[in-house]
Amino acid sequence: MTDVSASESPSAEPRRGREARRAARSKRSGASIPYITRAIPTTEMISPEGLAIIEANAETLLQEVGVDFRDYPAALARFKAAGADIRGERVRFPRGLARALCATAPSQYIQHARNSERSVQIGGDATVFAPNYGSPFVHDLDRGRRYGTIEDFQNFVKLAYLSPYIHHSGGTVCEPVDLPVNKRHLEMVYAHMRYSDKPFMGSVTKPERAEDTVAMCEILFGKDYLDTHTVCTSLINANSPLVWDSTMLGAAEVYARAHQACVITPFILAGAMSPVTVAGTLTQVLAEVMAGTAFCQLVRPGAPVVFGTFVSTLSMQSGAPTFGTPEAALAIYGAGQLARRMNMPFRTGGSLCASKLPDAQAAYESAQTLLPTMFAGTNFVLHAAGWMEGGLSASYEKFVMDADQLGAMHTLARGVDLSENGQGMDSFHQVEPGGHFLGCAHTQSNFEAAFYRSEIADNNSFEQWLEEGSKDAGARANALWKKRLAEYEAPAIDPGVDAALRDFIERKKASMPDANY
Amino acid sequence: MTDVSASESPSAEPRRGREARRAARSKRSGASIPYITRAIPTTEMISPEGLAIIEANAETLLQEVGVDFRDYPAALARFKAAGADIRGERVRFPRGLARALCATAPSQYIQHARNSERSVQIGGDATVFAPNYGSPFVHDLDRGRRYGTIEDFQNFVKLAYLSPYIHHSGGTVCEPVDLPVNKRHLEMVYAHMRYSDKPFMGSVTKPERAEDTVAMCEILFGKDYLDTHTVCTSLINANSPLVWDSTMLGAAEVYARAHQACVITPFILAGAMSPVTVAGTLTQVLAEVMAGTAFCQLVRPGAPVVFGTFVSTLSMQSGAPTFGTPEAALAIYGAGQLARRMNMPFRTGGSLCASKLPDAQAAYESAQTLLPTMFAGTNFVLHAAGWMEGGLSASYEKFVMDADQLGAMHTLARGVDLSENGQGMDSFHQVEPGGHFLGCAHTQSNFEAAFYRSEIADNNSFEQWLEEGSKDAGARANALWKKRLAEYEAPAIDPGVDAALRDFIERKKASMPDANY
Repeated sequence: MTDVSASESPSAEPRRGREARRAARSKRSGASIPYITRAIPTTEMISPEGLAIIEANAETLLQEVGVDFRDYPAALARFKAAGADIRGERVRFPRGLARALCATAPSQYIQHARNSERSVQIGGDATVFAPNYGSPFVHDLDRGRRYGTIEDFQNFVKLAYLSPYIHHSGGTVCEPVDLPVNKRHLEMVYAHMRYSDKPFMGSVTKPERAEDTVAMCEILFGKDYLDTHTVCTSLINANSPLVWDSTMLGAAEVYARAHQACVITPFILAGAMSPVTVAGTLTQVLAEVMAGTAFCQLVRPGAPVVFGTFVSTLSMQSGAPTFGTPEAALAIYGAGQLARRMNMPFRTGGSLCASKLPDAQAAYESAQTLLPTMFAGTNFVLHAAGWMEGGLSASYEKFVMDADQLGAMHTLARGVDLSENGQGMDSFHQVEPGGHFLGCAHTQSNFEAAFYRSEIADNNSFEQWLEEGSKDAGARANALWKKRLAEYEAPAIDPGVDAALRDFIERKKASMPDANY
Repeated sequence: MTDVSASESPSAEPRRGREARRAARSKRSGASIPYITRAIPTTEMISPEGLAIIEANAETLLQEVGVDFRDYPAALARFKAAGADIRGERVRFPRGLARALCATAPSQYIQHARNSERSVQIGGDATVFAPNYGSPFVHDLDRGRRYGTIEDFQNFVKLAYLSPYIHHSGGTVCEPVDLPVNKRHLEMVYAHMRYSDKPFMGSVTKPERAEDTVAMCEILFGKDYLDTHTVCTSLINANSPLVWDSTMLGAAEVYARAHQACVITPFILAGAMSPVTVAGTLTQVLAEVMAGTAFCQLVRPGAPVVFGTFVSTLSMQSGAPTFGTPEAALAIYGAGQLARRMNMPFRTGGSLCASKLPDAQAAYESAQTLLPTMFAGTNFVLHAAGWMEGGLSASYEKFVMDADQLGAMHTLARGVDLSENGQGMDSFHQVEPGGHFLGCAHTQSNFEAAFYRSEIADNNSFEQWLEEGSKDAGARANALWKKRLAEYEAPAIDPGVDAALRDFIERKKASMPDANY
C-alpha cells in the first residue's frame, strides 16, 4: 500500500486564483474543523487468531464459490488477464490473488474541497462525518413524512454546511423525487457544489451520470487537477451476496479511471443477504470488498478505494431490518480490524435507527451505532446525521440532534489531556477539602474550553423546563433546524464557474427527454 | 489482593433447607442470567505512562493536601495508628501508605442472594446491573412527576425482579417520601427481601440503619452465615472534594465489620467538586477511593470494597449537572483503568441523563454512558435502569427502555462467536451468489438464538406503525411496564422468615416516634 504523495496534502490547492476569497469566506463561516484526528484507541474485538480464520475463510469463499460480475464483460476480461478462473459470469480467485490485486490501493488519501480548508483526509487516524444518504422520504415534526424534493435536498446540504461537526457534504442526502430520474443527478451534484464548500460524493446510478459528475468536477476544480487530485468519493454498493452488477461496476470504472475514490461497500441485511452469524457475515464482507477493490485497481492501479461495510441485522419474526443491535456493533468492530489489516481506509456505521420518529428508540439505536463506529477506527462515516426509519426517511430534527452528538465525538476523540494544565494539580492547592472548584484560577482559566456544550440537551431545573414549555428534544431540534436554515448564507463561488456549471447542466437537460429510469 | 475462597463460589448456599423450593421458583420465573461474563476487551483510554502520572499525583494529593475525616474520631485514631499524619481532622498519608492499606481488599467477591441462582460475582470479568438509586421523585407518562412512595419503591423492585437483564435489586430505587425518614429504611430493605430474590443494597443514612439492615440480613440468611458470606453491597459516597463524613463512615464501619461490601464512591460534579479537567478529576477520585478503602480495611482487613466513581460534568453556563458527555465517558474509562491497577472491583456509569422525559435526549445520554460503562470493564453498574432528570426522578418508562438496552449489552459482551457454527462456511455452499440466506439450513438452525430482540423498538413498516397508532418509544414503554406489573408474582419466602422480618420491623417502628431526619 502506498501513502498519498506530499503534493496531495490537504493544503495543496486546486488551480485558479480563488484562494484569497476562500480564506475570507472560511473566516466568515466560523471555526473550521476539517476532520477528526483520533487520539483514542481502537477496539480490537476479535483476536489476531480469529481475524486470520476469517481471512482464510474469505480466501476459501473467493476460490471455491467465487463472485459474479454480471452484465459487465470488461470486468471478466480484466480478471481473466489477472489470473482468475472465469466460468460464465462467475469469477473465482486463486488464494491470495484478490488480496494481491488490492495492494496498490492507497492506505489513505486527501479528498480536496473547493475550499481547501475543508479538504479531508480519508484514512489513517482521521474520521470524517458525512450526512444521511439515499432516503426517498423526508420527515419533520410539522409536516410528517413525505417524498423528498430538491428543496429538501438543498436544505440538508445547507444544514451539513452549517454544522462545524459535519465535515463532508455527502451525496444523495435525500432523493429529490420531484425531478426526473435521468436529470436528478445534475441538480444534486450542483447543490453540493453551490450551497456548500465541503467535499462531496458523485452520482452512481448510471455510468454516464458518473461521467457527468466528473465533467462538473472538472469545471469546478480545473480539468488537469482531477488527474492528480481526488475531489469526489462515491458509494459503490455490492449486490450481496457475492454479486457486482453493471450499474455499480460502470460507475466504479468511471471514477477509478479518473483517479476518484470509490467506497466499495457490501450492503448487507445479515441473515438474508449473508449468513446469520457475525463471523460468517464478516467473511462475506471481506470477500466482496476484496473483489470490488481488485476491480478498481485493475482499472487504475493506485485509484483510492475505501473498505466499506454496511451491516444491519434482521428481525427474525418479521424480516424487517433492525439497527443499533449488538450484532451490528460487533460487525462494525470486526470489519474495522479487517480493513486495518488490508491497510485501507474504512467506512461503516453512522447514526442508524429503525424508528419512525426522532424519539428515544432513534437515539438509543443511533448512539449504539455511532460509538462503535468511533471505536472501530472508522475513517469515513456516511449516515452520520439525519438517518431515520431504516434509511427510508431523512429527518430534519434528527439531523441536528445527530450533529450535536457528532460534536461530542470530537471531544471524545481527543482523549484525556495529560498536560500540566490537564493534570490540574495547582487547583488542589487553591481549594481546601470540602471547598468548591468553580471559582478557582484553574477552573476560570479553563472555563471557555471546558466540557462539550450540547445545543439540544436541556439541563435546566425541572421548574425552568416547565416554564419554557416542557419541550422534548424533538421540539427543541425542530426550532434549531429552522433557526439554522433562516441564518444560512451560501459560500461565495466564482461567477464564471457557476455559469459554466449551469450551462453544462442546462445543455445536458436539453439533450434528452425526461425519464424516470 | 486476595481472591474469594472457593467456599464463596456463587453456588455456595445459605443455611436453612429452602433449596428445593428455590430451584422450583427459579424455574418458574424463567431464564436466569445471574450476571454478565464479559468476553470483550476493555478500552485502555489512558497509556500506562499517563496512569502512572495520575497515580503519582494522587499520592502527592494524599501526602500534601490530605483528606478530612469529619466528626469521626475513631477514624483518626485508626489512621494515626497506621502511620498517617493527623492534624485536626485532616489525615495526610505518607506516599504509598494508603495504597498499602488497600492491599487487603479482595479483588472480587460473591454477593449471595436468597435465591442462590441469583448470587452475583462482583469483580473480575463480571458485570452486574442494578437499578436507579436515590431519586426523590418518580415519573410516568400518565401522572407526570411526583414524589416517590413506598408503592413506587415496591413497583421498581418488582420491575427489576422481572427483568432477566437486571441482576441486582439495588437500594434506594426511589425515595419513599410517604414514610417517616427514621423508619423508611425498614420497609425499603424489606421490599428487596420480600418482592425480589435478587441481591440488594443496605441503608446508609445512619449507622444504626446500617445495623438494622445487618440484623434483617441475619434473619433472612442466618446469623452465622454473614460472617463468612457477603449478602449486602452498600453505597458509601464521599463528600467531595476530599472529605469523608461521619454518616458515611459510620455506615461503612458497620458493614465492613460485618464482612459486608461497601462501594466507596467519590460523587463528583467535575468543575465544582473536582478540577475542571478529566485527569485532575481522576486524581481526586483515586485519592478519595484509596482513603475510603483504607478506612474499611482498617476496620476489618479483607472486607469487600468496590472502587466507585460517579463523575458528572457541569454546564459552565448554568452550573447544572450534565450527563452522557464525552468528558464523563473519558472519566469512566480512566477510572476503570485505575481500579484494575488497584486490583479492586469497579463501579461506575449506568444509564445516566439530564432529560425530564424519556425522550431522545434521555436515550442519547444514557447510551453514551452505558457503552463506556461496558467497555470500561465495570463490575457493578448502579443506575443501570430508570435514571432520569439527573437522578431526581425515577422513570417507569425509562426503566423498561433501559432494561431493554441492558439486554443488548448481554449479547454485545459475548463478543464474536468463532466456532465452526459461528463461521458459517456451510451456508456459502447452500446459497449461490445473488441468493437468499433466510431459508438455508445454517440460518434455520440458528434462527432461535440469532439477533437480540428488543421489546421496545418498532421495526415494522411505516404503514403498519401508522395502523398501530403511530406510537413513540415512550408510549410503547408505558404499555410494557404496566403489563409487567400486572403479571408480577412474588417469589416465595419461608413464612417463618417473613414473620420474623415483619416482627423485627414492627418492634423497631414501635420503639421510636416518627421523625423526618
